[in-house]
Amino acid sequence: MKVGGVHYRTIWPGDDGASIEVIDQTRLPHDFETVRLATRADVEHAIRTMQVRGAPLIGVSAAYGVALQMQADASDESLDAAVKGLLATRPTAVDLGHALDAMVETLRPLPAARRAEAAWLRAAALADESAAACRAIGEHGVALVEQACEAGGGARVDVLTHCNAGWLATVDWGTALAPLYLAHDRGIPIHVWVDETRPRNQGASLTAWELGQHGVPHTIVADSAGGHLAQRGRVRLFLTGTDRTTARGDVCNKIGTYLKALAAHDNGVPFWVALPSSSLDWRLEDGVRDIPIEERDPRELTHVTGRDDAGRRVEVGLAPEDSPAANYAFDVTPARLVTGFITERGLCEASAEGLARAFGRTAP
Amino acid sequence: MKVGGVHYRTIWPGDDGASIEVIDQTRLPHDFETVRLATRADVEHAIRTMQVRGAPLIGVSAAYGVALQMQADASDESLDAAVKGLLATRPTAVDLGHALDAMVETLRPLPAARRAEAAWLRAAALADESAAACRAIGEHGVALVEQACEAGGGARVDVLTHCNAGWLATVDWGTALAPLYLAHDRGIPIHVWVDETRPRNQGASLTAWELGQHGVPHTIVADSAGGHLAQRGRVRLFLTGTDRTTARGDVCNKIGTYLKALAAHDNGVPFWVALPSSSLDWRLEDGVRDIPIEERDPRELTHVTGRDDAGRRVEVGLAPEDSPAANYAFDVTPARLVTGFITERGLCEASAEGLARAFGRTAP
Repeated sequence: MKVGGVHYRTIWPGDDGASIEVIDQTRLPHDFETVRLATRADVEHAIRTMQVRGAPLIGVSAAYGVALQMQADASDESLDAAVKGLLATRPTAVDLGHALDAMVETLRPLPAARRAEAAWLRAAALADESAAACRAIGEHGVALVEQACEAGGGARVDVLTHCNAGWLATVDWGTALAPLYLAHDRGIPIHVWVDETRPRNQGASLTAWELGQHGVPHTIVADSAGGHLAQRGRVRLFLTGTDRTTARGDVCNKIGTYLKALAAHDNGVPFWVALPSSSLDWRLEDGVRDIPIEERDPRELTHVTGRDDAGRRVEVGLAPEDSPAANYAFDVTPARLVTGFITERGLCEASAEGLARAFGRTAP
Repeated sequence: MKVGGVHYRTIWPGDDGASIEVIDQTRLPHDFETVRLATRADVEHAIRTMQVRGAPLIGVSAAYGVALQMQADASDESLDAAVKGLLATRPTAVDLGHALDAMVETLRPLPAARRAEAAWLRAAALADESAAACRAIGEHGVALVEQACEAGGGARVDVLTHCNAGWLATVDWGTALAPLYLAHDRGIPIHVWVDETRPRNQGASLTAWELGQHGVPHTIVADSAGGHLAQRGRVRLFLTGTDRTTARGDVCNKIGTYLKALAAHDNGVPFWVALPSSSLDWRLEDGVRDIPIEERDPRELTHVTGRDDAGRRVEVGLAPEDSPAANYAFDVTPARLVTGFITERGLCEASAEGLARAFGRTAP
């Protein structure tokens, strides 16, 4: 997607042919900066500190992390160490594991001398596949927006989204935002309620920024506002991404997604989830029971970094120094609250049957 | 309640006998400062900027605002102007209107010469009544906490609260927190999940601070975390205050309360509301339809004030400068989601019948 009129992906091979570059998402919305990652350790740091984040982008970044490692040392031990190290960076998004599996599947059978080149090619292919899946999600999802617009007699379609499932969370296009970009480009009048998404404010800092860059009308609201807006008939469609979806359709996504799904359900508003198949975890059934929920540094909650009057980046504390805080990063929305999935293969029901029909797989 | 071992109310007559003093709640949790209010305009400013906030405290502050006005000019015109000006400061909390009605009822029949003294006495009486109602809510509510503890075999009772309905929101004791202070004082093991409460962070800055001052175990969490915690069985009781409750029991409270009530309902966890009768609005039935929801300055959402490393108060911006924001301050929780009310007269059902039985009134 475009930044100041120039097309960017979130991740791309560096000019030196031996590193990758990414947009440093911890600097947005105030500064657009790219950062060069030259080693697997650089990639792990970027994932952990959320310079790159979003389930699909984490997966592709990890694939490139393996490629960087292969370039330094293409032994079996080195490959194993890369997978182990990268897998430990974030526990919840399943794309990470899928991308690493794909890399191992490609590299393990090869002699060490051929692994570096093959790894670069496979990582690039994963990036292209991810971008293509997002584009397809956009094509399938835009029909929902179009229908909502027609059902409302052509009136503006108000969509509420949580966190950032835009192009910044992926290689390009985004998942939940892909249909909205296409709708906007096709002249369907839309407006997006952007949840601020505490504690890291991905909504206010990333979603608002990328929608603004593309000219899509939007309004930032507190995470708590979605219920009120739904209650007053001011949301026509809820649309989010997912970090991991179980075989029966339970959705693990940014903390607070479950509360929005409850609000949608209580007010009869559709709640759709944009689901690239890379985010499916066929091994799991019950999301509440089985998905590990990442707990991050409480400081992300008690301190906030923003820009002061003079344009300087400043971190400020918000809470009493002696008060403990807990920072749960995800929650699970049971399939019963999900109207359906927008996948790269089309729309499908949020159920084991729906997912199996779409992807030809069944849970173990 | 105590601050550093010294007993404070949130509002009290100044030593000069011609002003009032309040705790400046915009300076917490980092600085404990009091501010002197000498005129009705000072009181209006304090309410509007939320130096004083919380439905019961807003009511008592407004009563003192009338007293300050009567001391300057005790004419009928002056009384009318005071009521009009004070009523316009915040639109949602109904205590404000009730306190002003009480002042007018006392003052209108009196000759101007006697109004100033009568106004001071009436305002002080309203403050005492409010503190007594909160203390009674504490006594009635502590039984719920005790029962939850017994039902759990003596295990710690985890309570989730939203915003600040503690002593800072009232004259003393608090509404939702009053039972928790008493439970803690009586040795019932409790722990409070404190919602940060965006955008003004009353949870992280006020509730955490006052619980900490009293030594009550607590943990600050993002507003989005309540669903996850309820889902995992980590909340035994939800307990909030109310800014306005209709005759049928719909509860208007800080934005986000409705989402917590949905989470409680979806997980079979009791959701109680601490309700001083001053917060009842017998004229209204349907809260979603009839209660005006205050929209505040969007800057409260896009900018945050905290303390930097050097201990300075700094405001920082979090969002893209061109992105609009909307700041809805309250939402409405339908009575069907409320397990019951803890009132100064005891526990009652969240229904027209329950409220009528408790207070001997019926809706018009």
